[in-house]
Amino acid sequence: MLKYEKIALLIEESIVENNLNHGSRLPNFKELIETYHVSKSTIVKALDLLEKRGIIYQIQGSGVFVRRKKRKGYINFSENQGFTADLGEFDITSKVLELSEVIPPLEVREHLSLDDKESVYYVKRIRYINSQVLCIEESYYNKTIIPYLNVEIAEHSIFDYCKTALKLNISFSDKYIHVIKLNKDESDLLELKEGDPGLLIDELFYLSSGEAFDFSKTIYHYVNSQFFLQSTKIYS
Amino acid sequence: MLKYEKIALLIEESIVENNLNHGSRLPNFKELIETYHVSKSTIVKALDLLEKRGIIYQIQGSGVFVRRKKRKGYINFSENQGFTADLGEFDITSKVLELSEVIPPLEVREHLSLDDKESVYYVKRIRYINSQVLCIEESYYNKTIIPYLNVEIAEHSIFDYCKTALKLNISFSDKYIHVIKLNKDESDLLELKEGDPGLLIDELFYLSSGEAFDFSKTIYHYVNSQFFLQSTKIYS
Repeated sequence: MLKYEKIALLIEESIVENNLNHGSRLPNFKELIETYHVSKSTIVKALDLLEKRGIIYQIQGSGVFVRRKKRKGYINFSENQGFTADLGEFDITSKVLELSEVIPPLEVREHLSLDDKESVYYVKRIRYINSQVLCIEESYYNKTIIPYLNVEIAEHSIFDYCKTALKLNISFSDKYIHVIKLNKDESDLLELKEGDPGLLIDELFYLSSGEAFDFSKTIYHYVNSQFFLQSTKIYS
Repeated sequence: MLKYEKIALLIEESIVENNLNHGSRLPNFKELIETYHVSKSTIVKALDLLEKRGIIYQIQGSGVFVRRKKRKGYINFSENQGFTADLGEFDITSKVLELSEVIPPLEVREHLSLDDKESVYYVKRIRYINSQVLCIEESYYNKTIIPYLNVEIAEHSIFDYCKTALKLNISFSDKYIHVIKLNKDESDLLELKEGDPGLLIDELFYLSSGEAFDFSKTIYHYVNSQFFLQSTKIYS
């Protein structure tokens, strides 16, 4: 973690600890520099990062202010740290329904840029939030990048394993989002009725090298999941 | 629009015009500087903006590459330019069901920081994409910020009116996303059946001053709408 990222985390922690509401003004630059014993440019970078993350907003000539805190229990749509990071306050567990090596369907081959004889790890899991069904997830992992996977790993966070054991740098993702009616199999797994609503997310995850290594189809329980997203204007 | 934003748009246009796919390499810094006749720092800023927007990714020491293009017809979840900007290739129209001045419910007063006697503009619209129902939208506009609104304006883009006529700088928003079952009224308006799925988005829009000026509840037609979101790792 870079220095300005550390400072950003410290500032965020102080917002949470002091229970600051939307619109609260943060200390000015001079005070932040003195508090954290860093240069002005580090503070500028830290604040830019916090603005990008939706934690604060800056008004030129006026100051730095706290943005509305997200409602508790909402999954953050815009960061791809995985649930374990998003829903840290909850108990997230997984039941592995299947873990196998398969030749994936065409759609997956295209997403992961595989040739038609290349096998992948296929993992199907039910994920729980505080013992309630959160989602069913089917993931396909490029074996060139994830050469080994087992049930024990898949029962916990596969992304943690990618980061810590395989030293992979998971960097960005593309999400395609649809609302669907559940079929019989899906509704059974989610403990709902056939025809009930579900949120389907196709997500393709990339390493910082630009290589796609994981394509996942996740269907969320429409009552037990809720999402949060902070958006920012891109062009002035 | 700032200079680096203009350059970013030009680079994006060249990616679209040349139909570059995911993984295509862009010209190097030197070539970009020569092509656009700008300084290196302008190119750096333009590329950072394009990376933030999910148009490119940069690999240190290796170059700048095109990110997968979004599927056509998907609403971009992470930018809040309004449909008219997102779905520019489609014909977006609106039917105004109601436009009135009301004392809003408590939830809205809290979101817009209004006292309990303050009235707002309430607008209920059905929005269409190529003549198909896209969503129903109920919006509450702070009258201190939007002092005048009429049906003619609401039949088109209210945000365009805010930007061009009222010179407002719409800057960021918070979205809260749920999947629901439609009630009778909602399903009638969406031309669906009671109990069919819907995507409900509560969204609070802010000006660059940090003031919240619009709270909207939008319910999307589950077949006629689809969403796209590019996410980026925040901390290294």
